[in-house]
Amino acid sequence: MHALDIATRVWNHKWKIDPIVRSLIDNDFYKLLMCQSVFHNKPDTQVAFSLINRSKSVRLAELIDEGELREQLDHIRSLSLTRGESTFLRGNTFYGKRQMFSPEFMTWFENLRLPPYHLEKRDGQFELTFEGTWAEVTLWEIPALAVLMELRGRAVLDRMGRFELQVLYARALTKLWEKIERLRGIEGLRIADFGTRRRHSYLWQDRCVQAMIEGLGNAFVGTSNCHIAMKRDIEAIGTNAHELPMVYAALADSDAELARAPYDVLSDWHRDHDGNLRIILPDTYGTKGFLDRAPDWLTQWTGIRIDSGDPAKGAEIAIDWWKSRGEDPREKLVIFSDGLDVEKIIELHKRFTGRVKVSFGWGTLLTNDFRGLTPEDSLAPFSMVCKAVSAEGRPTVKLSDNPRKAMGPEDEITRYKRVFGVGEQEAMEVVV
Amino acid sequence: MHALDIATRVWNHKWKIDPIVRSLIDNDFYKLLMCQSVFHNKPDTQVAFSLINRSKSVRLAELIDEGELREQLDHIRSLSLTRGESTFLRGNTFYGKRQMFSPEFMTWFENLRLPPYHLEKRDGQFELTFEGTWAEVTLWEIPALAVLMELRGRAVLDRMGRFELQVLYARALTKLWEKIERLRGIEGLRIADFGTRRRHSYLWQDRCVQAMIEGLGNAFVGTSNCHIAMKRDIEAIGTNAHELPMVYAALADSDAELARAPYDVLSDWHRDHDGNLRIILPDTYGTKGFLDRAPDWLTQWTGIRIDSGDPAKGAEIAIDWWKSRGEDPREKLVIFSDGLDVEKIIELHKRFTGRVKVSFGWGTLLTNDFRGLTPEDSLAPFSMVCKAVSAEGRPTVKLSDNPRKAMGPEDEITRYKRVFGVGEQEAMEVVV
Repeated sequence: MHALDIATRVWNHKWKIDPIVRSLIDNDFYKLLMCQSVFHNKPDTQVAFSLINRSKSVRLAELIDEGELREQLDHIRSLSLTRGESTFLRGNTFYGKRQMFSPEFMTWFENLRLPPYHLEKRDGQFELTFEGTWAEVTLWEIPALAVLMELRGRAVLDRMGRFELQVLYARALTKLWEKIERLRGIEGLRIADFGTRRRHSYLWQDRCVQAMIEGLGNAFVGTSNCHIAMKRDIEAIGTNAHELPMVYAALADSDAELARAPYDVLSDWHRDHDGNLRIILPDTYGTKGFLDRAPDWLTQWTGIRIDSGDPAKGAEIAIDWWKSRGEDPREKLVIFSDGLDVEKIIELHKRFTGRVKVSFGWGTLLTNDFRGLTPEDSLAPFSMVCKAVSAEGRPTVKLSDNPRKAMGPEDEITRYKRVFGVGEQEAMEVVV
Repeated sequence: MHALDIATRVWNHKWKIDPIVRSLIDNDFYKLLMCQSVFHNKPDTQVAFSLINRSKSVRLAELIDEGELREQLDHIRSLSLTRGESTFLRGNTFYGKRQMFSPEFMTWFENLRLPPYHLEKRDGQFELTFEGTWAEVTLWEIPALAVLMELRGRAVLDRMGRFELQVLYARALTKLWEKIERLRGIEGLRIADFGTRRRHSYLWQDRCVQAMIEGLGNAFVGTSNCHIAMKRDIEAIGTNAHELPMVYAALADSDAELARAPYDVLSDWHRDHDGNLRIILPDTYGTKGFLDRAPDWLTQWTGIRIDSGDPAKGAEIAIDWWKSRGEDPREKLVIFSDGLDVEKIIELHKRFTGRVKVSFGWGTLLTNDFRGLTPEDSLAPFSMVCKAVSAEGRPTVKLSDNPRKAMGPEDEITRYKRVFGVGEQEAMEVVV
């Protein structure tokens, strides 16, 4: 009894493309928080963000048509905040706080269009760069990644039959549900969707969120995706990321300023946010050194997010640090968010529950685990990021707790290692 | 971009129930062929059909609400042939023949409503009986079975969450596709959907047919379901069934007439049909004896359908019979249709290809293989039939090649065994 809705069909004719990103808030919540922070604290800083495909074997420029990529990026540049989206951001309570976004920021955001992009092909890869005011450029990161991941997926899906597609999604859904069934009923589990950037597609991410809502109930605490949070009436989740210390560090005029930069970031954040938003991301220039040199007010923060290196080791370092500063780790929150999948989540939950409060940000292997579902794993997610590569013309540097995630010019990496006292690091495979 | 079609939604409000059978030709094609044959050859014969649930452990009357069952059956009684369905039956070419259905039959069919039913509960089971003119009553068999199987399924599905349901169907679809992938590319395979009667649901059967179309291409030769054949523009498949010899036999006034009855059936059929419709169903009273005593004109028929007993043994008997009558088995067709699944299909195809023409009617384990997908296998198909139990007040008898499929009063079974010379039979488990 399914009647064809002719109006919808005709309306669809108007699209020249099937847009991948259809809303400015189809973006991670923490990007908006950081955007506001930058808008207030560093309104004039000029930056460049670049796409970096760490998976060299995935030759994106051979898989994806440049014209299609441009159409998708151009479409994103045509988006602006809708009235409903603005109302949602202005009126919603985030982390128990009303008016998270200031009226000045909202007025600016309502008038925002994303700045231009630069796109070239080189050596089978796309060189995709965004330059301009930090607060504007920063919002490109997530949609740019989502567009590239989905266009690569579409290139594979285009070759499949209609029923073959149905079966592909049936298998992916089954796989997803089997994961959720394994997590179901784990006492005290708290888990969020962090999978926007490298998702299979918007619809698939939304499907994953629906699965988490039904399968995990209260153990599912929300999604990083603002648009899905709005649509599904759930919590938008996220705090801050490496780009803040990376840009602050690049702006430093001396080694002394450089050494202080990561703490300046958190000092600005401390002034603007409280409670669950006070989460330390300590690994940009080495977790151990960062914590050893941290000022005392940071020990009062709610928790620490572990985003590189061996996560268990990172959490032990955090626990030791809290203890050494006279804090009770059981009152503190550890958020794991790096390359998680079910096994790792269960293992970490078991190991740390009771010792600290534990929470998980489950990303790519939640929203894009199409591994093993197509020949030659042509739909498996791969490791691609979009990072601030320079600020005011100076290169940025990231060391991370995993040298394979490090970035920046070699001489600058050497300098940063010296300034932050980073010694030997354990190299770990980067899956996604 | 999916807009709500308000008109459809409002139209759906008008249904008090969600009808399981929505068309008089949501029925097996061979029922229509037999109906026409009965309409012409035995227009006045009064019969009774009864539901027989061979799976006593499935206590249908405890799973299914009697009121809901009545609503579904009442809905079927409200159906009549639509103009489009009539045009399809009158205008279509079946088995290469136009005007398969006579104008007299079509006029009668266009005015038909199904006759009343008698429903009682006894001992956890439904006693469901249909009495009246054979040509009318016969059309109840398939919809009655489909309604009971689907209502039992709905009782299980009602307790499941929305996403849990999505996953259930995802798993079923994956299972279906994996079967089809195993059949794909088998040289010379010919296979049809015979799964209307014990299907999971109409929509699921239709989905299975779509999968076969995409997955098997020309190896998929059609469906027994008239409505789906019309909707998907594919061949409607089927010939004749046990009810013809069973009723003819019950009408016999002497042992001599009884012995002749199965051949009288085929003699009538021979007059009315040719080509691929001349398929012998030899097992009603034992395949071996039936073939040994068969008149010579039967050896000219196109093929034999094997519907009980060990299928390989049945096919060997058929091959020996053709050889003994001077026929070349390689010119003959053997149709396997009893409890098939992929393993059996592959095995039989391998064994008989090159020796005879082989074709498969894949039934319940195509359209209702939900085994292993729910706890306690609550959606697994079970063995339920709806059979002619009497004609003109006399009980019918079926012996079959598997004594577990035999039916009728004990003294009559003894008499039939004597008349048809049936000795020891091998008992085999009846799955579906």
